[in-house]
Amino acid sequence: MSELMWAGIKAIRGKGAEFKQVEIPRIDDNHLLVKVKAVSICGTDKHIYNWDPWAAGRLNPPLIFGHECCGEVVEVGKNVKKIKVGNIIAAESHIPCGVCKQCRMGNMHICDNLRILGVDTDGIFAEYAVLPEIVCWKVRKDLDPAIASIHEPFGNSVYVVMSGDVATKRVAIVGDGPTAAFACGIAKAVGAERIYNIGMQPFNLDICRKMGADVSINVAEDKDFITRIHDETSGGVDVVLDMAGNQPAIDTGFKLLRKAGTYVMFGIPPEPVRVDISDYIIFKGAKVIGVNGRKMFETWYQMSALLSGGMVDPTPVITHRYPFKDFLKAMEMFALGTEPSSKVVLLME
Amino acid sequence: MSELMWAGIKAIRGKGAEFKQVEIPRIDDNHLLVKVKAVSICGTDKHIYNWDPWAAGRLNPPLIFGHECCGEVVEVGKNVKKIKVGNIIAAESHIPCGVCKQCRMGNMHICDNLRILGVDTDGIFAEYAVLPEIVCWKVRKDLDPAIASIHEPFGNSVYVVMSGDVATKRVAIVGDGPTAAFACGIAKAVGAERIYNIGMQPFNLDICRKMGADVSINVAEDKDFITRIHDETSGGVDVVLDMAGNQPAIDTGFKLLRKAGTYVMFGIPPEPVRVDISDYIIFKGAKVIGVNGRKMFETWYQMSALLSGGMVDPTPVITHRYPFKDFLKAMEMFALGTEPSSKVVLLME
Amino acid sequence: MSELMWAGIKAIRGKGAEFKQVEIPRIDDNHLLVKVKAVSICGTDKHIYNWDPWAAGRLNPPLIFGHECCGEVVEVGKNVKKIKVGNIIAAESHIPCGVCKQCRMGNMHICDNLRILGVDTDGIFAEYAVLPEIVCWKVRKDLDPAIASIHEPFGNSVYVVMSGDVATKRVAIVGDGPTAAFACGIAKAVGAERIYNIGMQPFNLDICRKMGADVSINVAEDKDFITRIHDETSGGVDVVLDMAGNQPAIDTGFKLLRKAGTYVMFGIPPEPVRVDISDYIIFKGAKVIGVNGRKMFETWYQMSALLSGGMVDPTPVITHRYPFKDFLKAMEMFALGTEPSSKVVLLME
Amino acid sequence: MSELMWAGIKAIRGKGAEFKQVEIPRIDDNHLLVKVKAVSICGTDKHIYNWDPWAAGRLNPPLIFGHECCGEVVEVGKNVKKIKVGNIIAAESHIPCGVCKQCRMGNMHICDNLRILGVDTDGIFAEYAVLPEIVCWKVRKDLDPAIASIHEPFGNSVYVVMSGDVATKRVAIVGDGPTAAFACGIAKAVGAERIYNIGMQPFNLDICRKMGADVSINVAEDKDFITRIHDETSGGVDVVLDMAGNQPAIDTGFKLLRKAGTYVMFGIPPEPVRVDISDYIIFKGAKVIGVNGRKMFETWYQMSALLSGGMVDPTPVITHRYPFKDFLKAMEMFALGTEPSSKVVLLME
Repeated sequence: MSELMWAGIKAIRGKGAEFKQVEIPRIDDNHLLVKVKAVSICGTDKHIYNWDPWAAGRLNPPLIFGHECCGEVVEVGKNVKKIKVGNIIAAESHIPCGVCKQCRMGNMHICDNLRILGVDTDGIFAEYAVLPEIVCWKVRKDLDPAIASIHEPFGNSVYVVMSGDVATKRVAIVGDGPTAAFACGIAKAVGAERIYNIGMQPFNLDICRKMGADVSINVAEDKDFITRIHDETSGGVDVVLDMAGNQPAIDTGFKLLRKAGTYVMFGIPPEPVRVDISDYIIFKGAKVIGVNGRKMFETWYQMSALLSGGMVDPTPVITHRYPFKDFLKAMEMFALGTEPSSKVVLLME
Repeated sequence: MSELMWAGIKAIRGKGAEFKQVEIPRIDDNHLLVKVKAVSICGTDKHIYNWDPWAAGRLNPPLIFGHECCGEVVEVGKNVKKIKVGNIIAAESHIPCGVCKQCRMGNMHICDNLRILGVDTDGIFAEYAVLPEIVCWKVRKDLDPAIASIHEPFGNSVYVVMSGDVATKRVAIVGDGPTAAFACGIAKAVGAERIYNIGMQPFNLDICRKMGADVSINVAEDKDFITRIHDETSGGVDVVLDMAGNQPAIDTGFKLLRKAGTYVMFGIPPEPVRVDISDYIIFKGAKVIGVNGRKMFETWYQMSALLSGGMVDPTPVITHRYPFKDFLKAMEMFALGTEPSSKVVLLME
Repeated sequence: MSELMWAGIKAIRGKGAEFKQVEIPRIDDNHLLVKVKAVSICGTDKHIYNWDPWAAGRLNPPLIFGHECCGEVVEVGKNVKKIKVGNIIAAESHIPCGVCKQCRMGNMHICDNLRILGVDTDGIFAEYAVLPEIVCWKVRKDLDPAIASIHEPFGNSVYVVMSGDVATKRVAIVGDGPTAAFACGIAKAVGAERIYNIGMQPFNLDICRKMGADVSINVAEDKDFITRIHDETSGGVDVVLDMAGNQPAIDTGFKLLRKAGTYVMFGIPPEPVRVDISDYIIFKGAKVIGVNGRKMFETWYQMSALLSGGMVDPTPVITHRYPFKDFLKAMEMFALGTEPSSKVVLLME
Repeated sequence: MSELMWAGIKAIRGKGAEFKQVEIPRIDDNHLLVKVKAVSICGTDKHIYNWDPWAAGRLNPPLIFGHECCGEVVEVGKNVKKIKVGNIIAAESHIPCGVCKQCRMGNMHICDNLRILGVDTDGIFAEYAVLPEIVCWKVRKDLDPAIASIHEPFGNSVYVVMSGDVATKRVAIVGDGPTAAFACGIAKAVGAERIYNIGMQPFNLDICRKMGADVSINVAEDKDFITRIHDETSGGVDVVLDMAGNQPAIDTGFKLLRKAGTYVMFGIPPEPVRVDISDYIIFKGAKVIGVNGRKMFETWYQMSALLSGGMVDPTPVITHRYPFKDFLKAMEMFALGTEPSSKVVLLME
């Protein structure tokens, strides 16, 4: 008889989740078994919990969800080359096929056969998880497991900021959620001259300010900030990092952008958006860069420097920590928004 | 009493143009006088002739219009450093200030104080024109003046194609006007593996084919080309060059683009366009580049190689040649579209 | 009892090679078996045959050498994902580990644990060879096997030329061996305006001219070509591709290079070289790029367009074709240089 | 009769300098007159003072030398467009022609007709100086004139660091003079993870440490640092910034560099250097970038962010401040090295 573990499970095609005991999974030659230490909750997990149209179209319950993790390797398959039992790892959530054109061109993050942990396969809201070696990233043994668990979303922000090439630049970061907050810290660490953070939630704007935003703008209250920033920057910011992804964010972002500037798109608009291509992109001679996931594995090396190297302290973003046994309570708080929160982490011990 | 010359003039705020004698202009120390040999007609000149809303909002008649020229330098001001009497020149139409941030950053083509020849100042539908040295580009004495005169629009296409980095790539060129036709020739010359040209006018598609398009697609007749191209290219073209700039062109272009591809926007949509930012840009990890004008003067060095170096023969695009005395006849044909045409050139001799 | 095959073998630590029957190798789950159709001979094979100091320091005989191949897949291991029995493949000769930092950063060609086919493992001077899937590249079934076999060295030249970004540029290609000849053809195909080929062997210079060199310079006879090229190019060539790699080549290359130009180093000097860093690199603001191998697999996609897409015809470089049974004769001719030759191919049928 | 001013003058072809009164120069329409507030002394000024072979081959005395300045504009010619009387400026020392190929390609810093302030024309060891508008850069009125005067050498370091793209990288800065010290501060400000500073002078190494070096290595004492750094970085540093420029520096730098790393060459070796091109550049797949001067004017915008924006405090590098009347004393101290010093500034008030 197999041993059991606790897991957070999307059990049925509908709202909610379950927290129950299931069998500990077994590895084959090409995988390794991780004892999970911490797992943070992503906005995607909220979509899954709330069973929105995207989730309904993509997931096949029952499934263990969750994909932002830190754990200790407790067993390795015989084809595993480098990772050893005892290593502490964070995990990339994108599992690439390794043989398609995108994988062969160095774009594993947009693999043609991509499977996402906790979406297309069992994830890591669980005491144990099975992972392929390719997605495992060794981290410092003494790194706070909560910090280690947020590598994945932090990596989104790293990819975004590095795509914007922000050193010595004036940067507008549109949005105030966790990836925007991380982006403030990263942009500051890699030499942005001045960071304008455009958001709506005082609770979140405050976190962004702690992370490094120089100027906080609450669009609900401040009506003439576009003109003011144009004046201060003599023509607009050099770089816009759009972490929000909606019609007003995009209009705001492009209006703030100077000629020959760079606009990085990360926030995902739920539907098509009207774009004044002439004024926003062509006459400005602007460059627009679409970003999703993390570059595998350039972004992870950059992350190591930033997190393990101590260049950025992400703790202001981690607003909530729960013991794993309170999984349902944490999910409910986060999914229903009963408290203001940014990054929520579940800790196994 | 001054000497007189013939000129094509936007005389009043309304449709049409005049062809009449005016005084030959005089230069100051910082300018040079050019005896025009050939001038080609731009789509912009059609807007001016037809006095559309853009023209009505920008121009102050009376004004000599026209800006795509070849001429011989007949007089130089004493501060002119390099251009000599007797040089044959083509002209950049964008006159930069030289001291703004964009000029100082190497982006003279989007100068904050840009003046456009024949739009903001007297242009070159005339026997003589006054130019600042900065916009004059020496060309081979034996180059056909008609070819020399089309440097300016050809340069748009050069900037577009070089922004797309097309060598060994599959390229979709959306649009079939003169800049699309030039782009076909340039993309072929710099090593595109395969050029798909998407247009609507059989007359124009035929010119693009002569210039180098491998596959011509008439969207009016061919309904399943997007699927077909995806199959042929195993996932979409590497690069889209959008020379059309309208809602269907943009939808077509992004649907044709593969993941991690590059989309160059040159065609100017007259109004905002709906863009499915998630599927078109973010999930694809696409790069979008806005292009206008010509890089001053990197693009001109590239043009020299392509035109003076004989790498591209643009003659299939030059569908009409008129003597300058037939200016009004040529403008009317072009502006009213009484004949199918691509590039129309007026010759002084 | 196993079946036998003929193979070209470095049997002892000393000059020469043997041609004899050995057992056909067997695959495991992660490999595939290829029936070799054609194999071309590399300069490296000459070093191995002649047992020069590099070979003596690197190889452990007995070993089947040879690494430039075309073959048909006749058996696949169960973990092979994409390659099928019946596929015709060319092979990358660099076998990467897949897990080191360079592999994870998209630089498999400089993997920390690189093994080279026919150098560190048994190669493909044989009727059958065992390969890992990662190095197999499907080619068109109807491609001449001789052409298919030269993908590997052709790919060196592709990586070199693409690193030089030669479109619309004046390019000096220093050297006249097979990779220089390929580079001439590739540079022409991707839009070099003018190719100056600098060599020493009339036989080879002639091949380079057939491949696309515009100007052939024999340094043994032409003493003032540097001045002449500077005059013709108004200050030097835009790009130097150094396929030779020795003191005079490097002095020549840098003297030909214009300010802000790009120098691609591929030819491997056998010992340190004196470089006038001030005049050659710093005052010129030059960029120097070291190239070896092929980018895995960006270069291979480019190669597909160039070879399978028919953009370059490499046949002038293939000066000799031998039946495989004449292996020793071909090796001797090539290694001792008894005839002028460029690329020598062995054909199995 | 004209008014007089004090100036530091290279009066004769030989060692030394003079400090005497000369006429205040007059401007024409294209220049402006600056009342100098501070001027810092460059290593080049030492070469001029000591009349070394470079100086003897380049300069035509008598000449006011000096080129690193801060001043107030007191008169402007009528063709000056943007700079106004009362502006405080720092000056670019490279005066470009504006019409050569390099200037037209955005490389004014390597103009074919470059004249250097205080070398090819009268410089700014003087109470007043005449400058063309193009080299004047407005700075904050309240910026310490000593800091404002060091824009020019600081800009060298900015160009070097930005060429190295150091964010999240491990960087070796070879050399310990003022440009190396500035580079330490800049690399730290734009997000280098770890800076190894390799030098010889404890006085200078200490300044570099104050500016941001994480690890100071004195090559005179530390014999196994190359191995140690390779171990710490798992294969070498990502970027080398060579501010020294001599045989041991270059050997050290390349040995420290990891595969696929970037080597920026700024220090000027007085004679050719032996370079192991195979191991240092080709097998590593390294990129080498030659840097001199400052990009005009991208580097200046970056400098504004760093100095006026307060991202870097350069004061530890300014080891000596003299009143201008002590010009000869300061020059002698600096040129003869009678005291350890880094940056020496002369102040007019």
